[in-house]
Amino acid sequence: MTFRGSLPVRFADCDPAGIAYFPRLLALVDAAVEDWTAHALGVDRQGLHIGMRLGLPTVTLETEFMSPARLGDRLDIAVRVTRLGTSSLALAVTASIVGRPCLEARLVQVLTNLETMRPAPWPESWRARICPINEEISS
Amino acid sequence: MTFRGSLPVRFADCDPAGIAYFPRLLALVDAAVEDWTAHALGVDRQGLHIGMRLGLPTVTLETEFMSPARLGDRLDIAVRVTRLGTSSLALAVTASIVGRPCLEARLVQVLTNLETMRPAPWPESWRARICPINEEISS
Amino acid sequence: MTFRGSLPVRFADCDPAGIAYFPRLLALVDAAVEDWTAHALGVDRQGLHIGMRLGLPTVTLETEFMSPARLGDRLDIAVRVTRLGTSSLALAVTASIVGRPCLEARLVQVLTNLETMRPAPWPESWRARICPINEEISS
Amino acid sequence: MTFRGSLPVRFADCDPAGIAYFPRLLALVDAAVEDWTAHALGVDRQGLHIGMRLGLPTVTLETEFMSPARLGDRLDIAVRVTRLGTSSLALAVTASIVGRPCLEARLVQVLTNLETMRPAPWPESWRARICPINEEISS
Repeated sequence: MTFRGSLPVRFADCDPAGIAYFPRLLALVDAAVEDWTAHALGVDRQGLHIGMRLGLPTVTLETEFMSPARLGDRLDIAVRVTRLGTSSLALAVTASIVGRPCLEARLVQVLTNLETMRPAPWPESWRARICPINEEISS
Repeated sequence: MTFRGSLPVRFADCDPAGIAYFPRLLALVDAAVEDWTAHALGVDRQGLHIGMRLGLPTVTLETEFMSPARLGDRLDIAVRVTRLGTSSLALAVTASIVGRPCLEARLVQVLTNLETMRPAPWPESWRARICPINEEISS
Repeated sequence: MTFRGSLPVRFADCDPAGIAYFPRLLALVDAAVEDWTAHALGVDRQGLHIGMRLGLPTVTLETEFMSPARLGDRLDIAVRVTRLGTSSLALAVTASIVGRPCLEARLVQVLTNLETMRPAPWPESWRARICPINEEISS
Repeated sequence: MTFRGSLPVRFADCDPAGIAYFPRLLALVDAAVEDWTAHALGVDRQGLHIGMRLGLPTVTLETEFMSPARLGDRLDIAVRVTRLGTSSLALAVTASIVGRPCLEARLVQVLTNLETMRPAPWPESWRARICPINEEISS
């Protein structure tokens, strides 16, 4: 199952070459992951951070930028779980513009106790929510 | 030969968890690459973009975030050429904080004609400047 | 007549105090102005910048931040023309969160020829689109 | 007495018109204020926020953008206290580029208890550090 969102490429995202600046594109990828998190866990980042003192820092990121995104483009972003570990979560994110692939990102996040900054195991209730999403997920 | 710079982690770079937000860290990596470019080519991005209508978009990026950067930390950033292709350039960037590794990034940029958005071969004069930097560079 | 939009306060917008960082809030204000521009002129910033080589730089900005915006809040943003000069445009922007005022901004933009960086008079067709919006507008 | 700093206008700060994007310029203004704070109070924002649970949110901001800043420019920024209230602090910030005025900003910050989000009176020790800076300061 794939979670889908759509985000505009804004003036603030574009560089002097008139195309989206790559760290800003990655912030748009993260915005889609932020929306995925609320959808998948049933708790948004506000609840996660402030309420539960848990974070989901990104520990590895691989990205291919396949074609430029320009001011006024709209990114269609798809987020898919590829692996669920004890404390980790691997996501694959693709963004396209009217069907043209723009970027592919693979990122690993680790559920982290913000007080100790140590990994926290996924609670069973969240694992049960995330797991059915992809049959190929290893637990 | 390695190019070194130092950049502060500012309030603007930090997220509600109190650590540097990864797209902002990647903007700091890019700031170091921006300084490397002016040093290595003898032309800064302003001259490159506006004067010569050339860009250096990033086409692939792999990053490992090894430990968090916090408000007030200072990143020691090292930029090293790992490969020089016909139009491409591979860079390895590491950032550390008082000797503690913070992140490692490997990125590939492609010299691009901003009018046609097609790859442009490295001029010999720039190749001659960049090549001697690392003996292991394939040309 | 008032143009209305709604934008989320994202993780990327929030600072270590857990509230929206003011330059990021101002980027959200500008995002609403960006949407207003496309609506009011019938041309978006991409067409304006790339197609017509016109820009709308902000020359003055006054902002009162009345209450903090937090991660997960949604800003209801209203944009209203307050004055239309020969080349200038004054806008009043308010943002609120579930009815609670968050900020008020007054900004003046100047239609600018991006080749010469000199003010450009508003074309009559755009003036005709913008003028009827508020009766109190001086021309 | 005026606090002075110098910050580069980076690629990340510039928009498709090739000039610094105003919310990014304001983040550079805030970076200078961040450095001023550590200098003036003897405590940096990390110590202020994390250690003392105090913040300095900006409550009003007035800015005139007098001339554009471009990629590769260096901003010479001056920060000056104009008023010290019970909990508030008014600062005037100017930025220039090789002597050419770029912007003037007047901002008011309020020392705030981050637990209660209520204003906190300036401790006498900080008042004593800040006060002598300008004779015209009302206390």
